Amino acid sequence: MTLPQAVEAIRPTDRACLERARRRLDRLTKPVGSLGRLEDLAACYVGITGEEQPAIPRAAVFTFAADHGVVDEGVSAYPRTVTAQMVLNFLRSGAGVNVLASHVGAEVRVVDIGVAHEFGPLPGLLHRKVAHGTRNFLREPAMTREQAIYAIEIGVNLAVEATSEGLGLLGTGDMGIGNTTASAAITAVMTGESVVAVTGRGTGIDEAGWAHKVAVIEQALSNRRPDAADPLDILAKVGGFEIAGLAGLILGGAACRRPVVLDGFIAGAAAMIAVGLQPLCCEYLIASHLSVERGHQAILKKLGLRPLFDLDLRLGEGTGACLAISLIHGAIKIFTGMATFDEAGVSERLS
Amino acid sequence: MTLPQAVEAIRPTDRACLERARRRLDRLTKPVGSLGRLEDLAACYVGITGEEQPAIPRAAVFTFAADHGVVDEGVSAYPRTVTAQMVLNFLRSGAGVNVLASHVGAEVRVVDIGVAHEFGPLPGLLHRKVAHGTRNFLREPAMTREQAIYAIEIGVNLAVEATSEGLGLLGTGDMGIGNTTASAAITAVMTGESVVAVTGRGTGIDEAGWAHKVAVIEQALSNRRPDAADPLDILAKVGGFEIAGLAGLILGGAACRRPVVLDGFIAGAAAMIAVGLQPLCCEYLIASHLSVERGHQAILKKLGLRPLFDLDLRLGEGTGACLAISLIHGAIKIFTGMATFDEAGVSERLS
Repeated sequence: MTLPQAVEAIRPTDRACLERARRRLDRLTKPVGSLGRLEDLAACYVGITGEEQPAIPRAAVFTFAADHGVVDEGVSAYPRTVTAQMVLNFLRSGAGVNVLASHVGAEVRVVDIGVAHEFGPLPGLLHRKVAHGTRNFLREPAMTREQAIYAIEIGVNLAVEATSEGLGLLGTGDMGIGNTTASAAITAVMTGESVVAVTGRGTGIDEAGWAHKVAVIEQALSNRRPDAADPLDILAKVGGFEIAGLAGLILGGAACRRPVVLDGFIAGAAAMIAVGLQPLCCEYLIASHLSVERGHQAILKKLGLRPLFDLDLRLGEGTGACLAISLIHGAIKIFTGMATFDEAGVSERLS
Repeated sequence: MTLPQAVEAIRPTDRACLERARRRLDRLTKPVGSLGRLEDLAACYVGITGEEQPAIPRAAVFTFAADHGVVDEGVSAYPRTVTAQMVLNFLRSGAGVNVLASHVGAEVRVVDIGVAHEFGPLPGLLHRKVAHGTRNFLREPAMTREQAIYAIEIGVNLAVEATSEGLGLLGTGDMGIGNTTASAAITAVMTGESVVAVTGRGTGIDEAGWAHKVAVIEQALSNRRPDAADPLDILAKVGGFEIAGLAGLILGGAACRRPVVLDGFIAGAAAMIAVGLQPLCCEYLIASHLSVERGHQAILKKLGLRPLFDLDLRLGEGTGACLAISLIHGAIKIFTGMATFDEAGVSERLS
């Protein structure tokens, strides 16, 4: 599926379906609305998928890995080699996302969409490398517009293939040393906030490192001048391959009427790109958590999404998405598994 | 185990153990602290239990059911008969807590500690009835001091028995039409807040019903004059049997060095009673969520606990505790299942 086809295929979610789901929730043996956001999740899931008697969806977190040329500017606390090392860690199930995905019964699909390392044949790795990392966007555009579209279409097609395999719930994950720098640049452009307001400490740089990171992003935006009205221009000039892949996964998921669970800050930047390309895809998004990373709040506000958790997470990889997948599974079980007042012979409220 | 024995048996949690757990967490392949509250939960679990290589604990939610004489004053949106009907619903696995407990791999143990109904032999029900509901505390004390102690000891011994069976994680649950009225009365006395500030809408009364509920509690506190420095006096005069049982479960869990996961508002009132009897037991508490019920925030502030979730829940039964149990299981898996930097061959941060 091409990017224009995905954009074209996305429809509004089904309001009538969602309302019928709400009416069923009100017949279950609990005070109306007393399961709060679990009820919202269940109704939202039904409205997105059109499944009025939903089965528990198989879930997968797609962890897109890529490197960033801007790391040459010293914006990260970790060396670039960590991206490839963590890909190997994912494939050996040693990382946080592996543990949490297994805990909630989800798969992890690891995608090399632009790591600056030649892995060779490696079981379990989805080889979709666009290039060996982006270029240093302080000096030149991170990628070409053609590469941006190509990387998005990789994500679109991973979503389409997953859906045709029977996966029903898609989570976003990311790995890329330097990717909070690219995401902060995107966030500044797309929210209109200052670079200072949306740049955080990533993996854990100190105060001086943070000031340097801010200065690099400010200079890069001044050099590159991305067009705030053109998501592809922003992505190409200051984005990253994993961010493009995630934007594609979101568009592809929405095109297939599947909910997409956002992880944290990187996922948020990708979601703004996707929503910029097709505003309707926002209805298919579920925000898992509020990241510690400064700037995430501005993204969620821009997208109009309320996160499910605030657990001080800032790891990425898809760890927050895993926790939300479990909550969505629980919400669907509430919807289909609880007794109604009639079934249970429980008296209803006094008039 | 008697109440004085439980109070005597409770020790501070193991700080040295907790610090060793934190050091291990810092060796795992993630930026230090980047899994936020999951790391706190794992360290806290190790400090409470002393298990430095913890297995995933078997978990049970104890749903204590009881009736309340004060329902005669018209303080609830549902008739009293719903308490017994919901006990039957729990035993048939039709309620919210059944669905969520099953989702997270926990048991539900249903305890009749004071339902105003004679169930007869009923497989699965723990028969621990103290009386057929409390007395109407607007007119007379809810229970005698002896009944309060007896009901607490029921909870203590359920925790002790569960621990000896190998259960490692105890969740609190409750069912009792009228129990937000009793809990609000306890909360007003123990936090020093006004009745207006800590009284909510329970199962869903309207504005006039809420004003009436506030007036009933204010008059009851004026009539009963519970001694704010004597938790047993408060419990006996304006409490409930399920609240007493939960306070006992907390004390018994702490005495056995097991974490106790609090559900919402009712659990919070019980926790204040337990902490009033033995302040050290607060170290064993994990607050699952912030309830919609007004007054819960004041309780959590008083206890110094930060809830894990804010999902607009107000059902009770133990539903919020179930969600937290899953998070604790996930945190323990992070602690034991993630690779360290050395094991994974991942580079550490730049100096």
